[in-house]
Amino acid sequence: MYKFVMPEVIFGSGSIQQAGESCARLGAKRALIVTDEGVIQAGWSELVEKSCRQAGLSSFVFSNVSVNPKDEEAEACARIYLENECDALIGVGGGSAIDTAKAAAILATNGGHIRDYEGVDRIFSPLPPLVMVSTTAGSGSEVSQFSVIVDTAQRKKMTIVSKSLVPDIAIVDPDVLATKSQHLTASTGLDVLTHAIESFVSIASTPLTDVHAKNALALSSRYLRPSVASKHNKEAKEQMAMASLHAGLAFSNAILGAVHAMAHAIGGRYPFLHGDINAVLLPHVMEFNLLASPDKFKEIALLMGEDVQSLPPAAAGEKAIDFVRRLSIDIGAPLTLAEMGFEGSAIPEISEMALSDACMITNPRDITAEEAAALLRKAL
Amino acid sequence: MYKFVMPEVIFGSGSIQQAGESCARLGAKRALIVTDEGVIQAGWSELVEKSCRQAGLSSFVFSNVSVNPKDEEAEACARIYLENECDALIGVGGGSAIDTAKAAAILATNGGHIRDYEGVDRIFSPLPPLVMVSTTAGSGSEVSQFSVIVDTAQRKKMTIVSKSLVPDIAIVDPDVLATKSQHLTASTGLDVLTHAIESFVSIASTPLTDVHAKNALALSSRYLRPSVASKHNKEAKEQMAMASLHAGLAFSNAILGAVHAMAHAIGGRYPFLHGDINAVLLPHVMEFNLLASPDKFKEIALLMGEDVQSLPPAAAGEKAIDFVRRLSIDIGAPLTLAEMGFEGSAIPEISEMALSDACMITNPRDITAEEAAALLRKAL
Repeated sequence: MYKFVMPEVIFGSGSIQQAGESCARLGAKRALIVTDEGVIQAGWSELVEKSCRQAGLSSFVFSNVSVNPKDEEAEACARIYLENECDALIGVGGGSAIDTAKAAAILATNGGHIRDYEGVDRIFSPLPPLVMVSTTAGSGSEVSQFSVIVDTAQRKKMTIVSKSLVPDIAIVDPDVLATKSQHLTASTGLDVLTHAIESFVSIASTPLTDVHAKNALALSSRYLRPSVASKHNKEAKEQMAMASLHAGLAFSNAILGAVHAMAHAIGGRYPFLHGDINAVLLPHVMEFNLLASPDKFKEIALLMGEDVQSLPPAAAGEKAIDFVRRLSIDIGAPLTLAEMGFEGSAIPEISEMALSDACMITNPRDITAEEAAALLRKAL
Repeated sequence: MYKFVMPEVIFGSGSIQQAGESCARLGAKRALIVTDEGVIQAGWSELVEKSCRQAGLSSFVFSNVSVNPKDEEAEACARIYLENECDALIGVGGGSAIDTAKAAAILATNGGHIRDYEGVDRIFSPLPPLVMVSTTAGSGSEVSQFSVIVDTAQRKKMTIVSKSLVPDIAIVDPDVLATKSQHLTASTGLDVLTHAIESFVSIASTPLTDVHAKNALALSSRYLRPSVASKHNKEAKEQMAMASLHAGLAFSNAILGAVHAMAHAIGGRYPFLHGDINAVLLPHVMEFNLLASPDKFKEIALLMGEDVQSLPPAAAGEKAIDFVRRLSIDIGAPLTLAEMGFEGSAIPEISEMALSDACMITNPRDITAEEAAALLRKAL
């Protein structure tokens, strides 16, 4: 027996203009828009403010959000929400802005410290209406039951999982992807691929999540290269937005694995882009996990378009790993942790921390701290 | 730009026992269980009552539901709901019980006559919490934004479409399918296939609905025969339950077509099983619609497992139609309207009525009353 949950989705060119009306439809009058400076500069936040005005809503803006959003930012955001007597939140951005909006929503109606909600199903009071506008085709947070926030005291990322965190309405507008840098397109695109692969081999995967993981895999394998190649390739942007949506639906309901567990541990200490860390770790973790589910890795290779029908599962799985390595090289993703500034001396602590991340529970192969450390050394 | 909406889904063996807890999770204390005599005799309604007791809920039962549920039944159901001061509805059954529960929910919080809500988006006040337990692997109503109710004065089926009608939680337990008769298994299974085909070729189909329509098509083409063949084939029951779920998600968001428009018109006058009417009409409407989207009909044939890769689209589409005819014969579905008791003299009136059904708008080929009449004569 398993459960599957998703928000209402509005998908397509121009859908960002539905943000205000969506919020009004949920009964809101005063919306707090949670975003970041990059999104403001690209003009997307202003479009959302305009849509609020048109829908008769007052709106306020909070934009103090880091690449890896922090507990103190979520607390500041919740204060602004309460001070302005807001009654809904609109996240506009990538995972950072959306996860901050979710964390602020928890604090606004449940109180306490965000640390109190780390783990699975610890939220008891209903959250305010949540409308999330994804601007990255990456995090999947606009549809997921996850929020990942840095505990600044302990310098680690906390994974918060609860059905309450599934937004009411998710807006995915491929047009906004045209303003992303090439680096961000590559990084968030590899996050999509990682979501698809980890949720597909997760021990919590189900026939319903597999449907979404497979679609995400097929689409991102095909469209990530052309999407990085040109800001103006509308088809590639639209298909990557769809891939991100499918990947988000898959991992929200099947959870993830060792790549994300280690990436969260690293992201709590270093200001690296989450997608960059995933990109480096993914092929190493796939090598490690291949033992656990060779048949699924063969399916992954097939979905990537590799000619592996006649190969035994493990050999086919190797082709999927080769595919990921070639893709990272082609789109200029980092290939080692060291080139990003990660220090080998942190490995023992990071590997210990990764073991206690909620995403590690669903990794298809059991993993010890020594094995996690060995993977990090390979990735160094 | 398009929207996609679905309830939380709980799927799998034993999930029917989650009904009470699901209702409690939505804040309810007094649930009205809407079901029918067949479901009560099979013991499923009692299981739901037990799950309510275990979750600390009071429960009441309404079971006066026809095969094609009527406005006066929905009104009686709403009265029972209000008299007992209920605060949630649990539909337990096929489309008839679930659609009655939805219609009673509308009346309970919106008042008036059910006729006032016919058409699209006419419901303005929020509905009570809705938990729907599907017992047929057919209607898809447990996940859809539809309710279809007979207007007894006008002797026609009204199609009510609103996002408010999407239940909060849908429970799909394949175990309950073991008590269905062979006839009902065949009839509801062909309803699933019809949902899949009509939503796939609908002019309102989207990439998201196509994902679900394709899965529904592939699964029902493969598992309907073995599911009819044996009450004890658990795999076939589970896959048909999954097919029904996918088909429901597809048509809830992409709407249907001429088969359903005509089946609604007939179902308003005759006490036939909805799936039986669809089964007879489907191949004739496919022949008519082939002109509109031969490429999609070729995809349908491929998903059915037909060897049509090298055929031109229209010829491949003919194979899909042949597949449907063979399937109906194999599982003993009715092949003509006359053998069910339909009279040719009703054709002019029925074809006129079908033209104004909400499902006709999304049929891929424009259709006149004369063309609808011609299709009905062929199906006679």
